[in-house]
Amino acid sequence: MTPIITAFEQSPDRGKGQARDMRVRWALEEVNQAYDVRLVSFTGMKEPEHLALHPFGQIPTYEEGDLTLFESGAIVLHIAESHAGLLPSDANARSRAITWMFAALNTMEPPLVDCEVAMLLEREKPWYEERQPVLEDRARKRLDELSRRLGDADWLDGTFTAGDLLMVAVLFRSKESGILEEYPNLSAYVARGEARPAFKRAFAAQLAVFTGAHPSR
Amino acid sequence: MTPIITAFEQSPDRGKGQARDMRVRWALEEVNQAYDVRLVSFTGMKEPEHLALHPFGQIPTYEEGDLTLFESGAIVLHIAESHAGLLPSDANARSRAITWMFAALNTMEPPLVDCEVAMLLEREKPWYEERQPVLEDRARKRLDELSRRLGDADWLDGTFTAGDLLMVAVLFRSKESGILEEYPNLSAYVARGEARPAFKRAFAAQLAVFTGAHPSR
Repeated sequence: MTPIITAFEQSPDRGKGQARDMRVRWALEEVNQAYDVRLVSFTGMKEPEHLALHPFGQIPTYEEGDLTLFESGAIVLHIAESHAGLLPSDANARSRAITWMFAALNTMEPPLVDCEVAMLLEREKPWYEERQPVLEDRARKRLDELSRRLGDADWLDGTFTAGDLLMVAVLFRSKESGILEEYPNLSAYVARGEARPAFKRAFAAQLAVFTGAHPSR
Repeated sequence: MTPIITAFEQSPDRGKGQARDMRVRWALEEVNQAYDVRLVSFTGMKEPEHLALHPFGQIPTYEEGDLTLFESGAIVLHIAESHAGLLPSDANARSRAITWMFAALNTMEPPLVDCEVAMLLEREKPWYEERQPVLEDRARKRLDELSRRLGDADWLDGTFTAGDLLMVAVLFRSKESGILEEYPNLSAYVARGEARPAFKRAFAAQLAVFTGAHPSR
């Protein structure tokens, strides 16, 4: 059964990998699962039909027969659990990979998103100059700790897992801000993720929405 | 094998259920799994011994034989997967329960924590008066959506799951701010969580650290 995901009809980044359907597309590509995409508009996301799928009126959602999921982390975990390739078979290694999934979304993403949100919404405010460096330092604290843990390893815990997929996806979003360049090993880590054929296919599919090539992928 | 978790030796809330070991204690109590607690100081959390367990220098951690985990969401999921009682046996219902786990930690917790952090760290700043209502409105948007989805149901998707456990734990942290009182159905939902015997045992055990009763629980 071909799952259906939702994605932005008009994404603020014009399909450059920032929107959270990127993670789900990437996971589906890693496990070679074909999928369909239904595009939703910003107003459509707030209508009852979409809210029935996603109570918080966002993308992505995931429909597979009777099952409807939301939250990119939960969707990636569902894909990883239903296919081989994104979670180790050893039980302890599997739990550690899931730990990195939560770490990506709960520990790394919030301070990085805080920097982004302030840049987008508070740049004209009188406090921006004083407050933005504080936010960046909060993000740097987490990046320092992640960089120290990764060291010179290729991936966070042995082979590539869904934990790396989400961590790379989160860090990738912050590339444009320049903060990642301060961490050569994290930059190289993200580059390794971007070099994966599945990442490239997912990125191209997301970009195709904005270049007219969607939905004939 | 008795798992060992870590918790604050000196918690800012003096053991009133705000620290994130509460969620893990609650999950362990729900499945009747005994556990040991190792208390760590704020300086101890940043030392190499603890950083080997938790790369971000926080609590809780979870040790069970050769396995070490961090991130409260990942620990609760590990507990839910290794014991009956916190995840439905039906595969679709199980995936939906996990979706609520991610929703609690990724969609609900960040805007609620943003309000708390600003109250703690920015109350004296000249922008506080203008900015705090914006943060509260961001949190209210999510609370509105959650309230609408919950409606008059007892739990988010049928029976109590690890998704409810994390959602109640996240909302519980915001009780003191008063914002939850604007949502009678969410207040009742949190009260239902607090009324569970496992919640009460976990709460008492966390509080005991600060009343001298720990570790003889």
